[in-house]
Amino acid sequence: MFEGGEGCGKSTQARLLAEALGPGTVLTREPGATEVGARLRTILLSPETGDLDPRTEALLMAADRAQHVAEVVAPALAAGHHVVSDRYAYSSIAYQGYGRGLSAGEVRMLSDWAGGGLWPDAVVFLDLPDGDGGQPRSHASAVLDDRFETAGAAFFARVVAGFREMCEDDPSRWIRIDGSAPVETVAAAVRAAVGQRLQLPL
Amino acid sequence: MFEGGEGCGKSTQARLLAEALGPGTVLTREPGATEVGARLRTILLSPETGDLDPRTEALLMAADRAQHVAEVVAPALAAGHHVVSDRYAYSSIAYQGYGRGLSAGEVRMLSDWAGGGLWPDAVVFLDLPDGDGGQPRSHASAVLDDRFETAGAAFFARVVAGFREMCEDDPSRWIRIDGSAPVETVAAAVRAAVGQRLQLPL
Repeated sequence: MFEGGEGCGKSTQARLLAEALGPGTVLTREPGATEVGARLRTILLSPETGDLDPRTEALLMAADRAQHVAEVVAPALAAGHHVVSDRYAYSSIAYQGYGRGLSAGEVRMLSDWAGGGLWPDAVVFLDLPDGDGGQPRSHASAVLDDRFETAGAAFFARVVAGFREMCEDDPSRWIRIDGSAPVETVAAAVRAAVGQRLQLPL
Repeated sequence: MFEGGEGCGKSTQARLLAEALGPGTVLTREPGATEVGARLRTILLSPETGDLDPRTEALLMAADRAQHVAEVVAPALAAGHHVVSDRYAYSSIAYQGYGRGLSAGEVRMLSDWAGGGLWPDAVVFLDLPDGDGGQPRSHASAVLDDRFETAGAAFFARVVAGFREMCEDDPSRWIRIDGSAPVETVAAAVRAAVGQRLQLPL
């Protein structure tokens, strides 16, 4: 699973790792990987939605996750495929917990329930040096103009601090990689670290 | 809060009780009382949505509830108004717990978290004799043709059994009323029971 703030290169790196893992690998993302998830993604990201209660936001992310695991992730794992996801439960803990101020422990339990207890073997955290990331690079893409990206610098600082804390607390699962290097340098570091962690020839 | 199976007269009786409680009373419902809730209601009830994982369904109901409480119910109570809702958390426990087979205790905890620990002073359960209810009266209205109403007789039997069990387990909160009597008879029984329970002159 790939985790990190906005504009850190998660989507690109998730795709490159999935290619390196070879045919049969399932590349997916949250929110929005299923049909109902796509509708929830629109509600969650569209600025037109306006203010959502933090619990509503967390529950909608969890609903997306439940359907994602049931429809995509669990069947792929059961069939013996690797699954690479652009975001998973840790984003909920970082955004709705650390960012929106809900209890991180409660958001974690909610995600655990939604995902039927499924947690990834490895979490790649693309960290950016302070000042270079933590806030969306809103010039990079029109699609970045979403509900979260209008939440302000303090919100994103809390989100990134949350990712860093989770990374430090669970070193056997998390892999921290500097996301500010060139794309191919980052991709090579991801392959090396994931290959070593999962004992795969990458 | 009014609870019960399909076609038991909840909406009508909720409206009549709200009228009896007088001006300022807030009449509301789940799912769909807020703007985002209306979008979730469409997803939850539309047959076009197709199969949802039971956890997805429970989490979407909980998301609707979180926004409903934050935007409608809690502000109304804080302002000193009575709130009458057509369905609340017990419907989630009955439908997604007893009906869909999730743990009733887990669905209850989920609702508790979504609603910030808010539970009603009184629950009016409009029960119908077996054979007269438990299944939607699909001839009654075009809007009854939704995802839940295509779930089959065994599903509705489990839902009604769930309501009855919750009613027996919590007699200080629940009020069971036979919903098969004429509308005005049921309304009078509701007024009498709620008035006595909440010590209001109804």
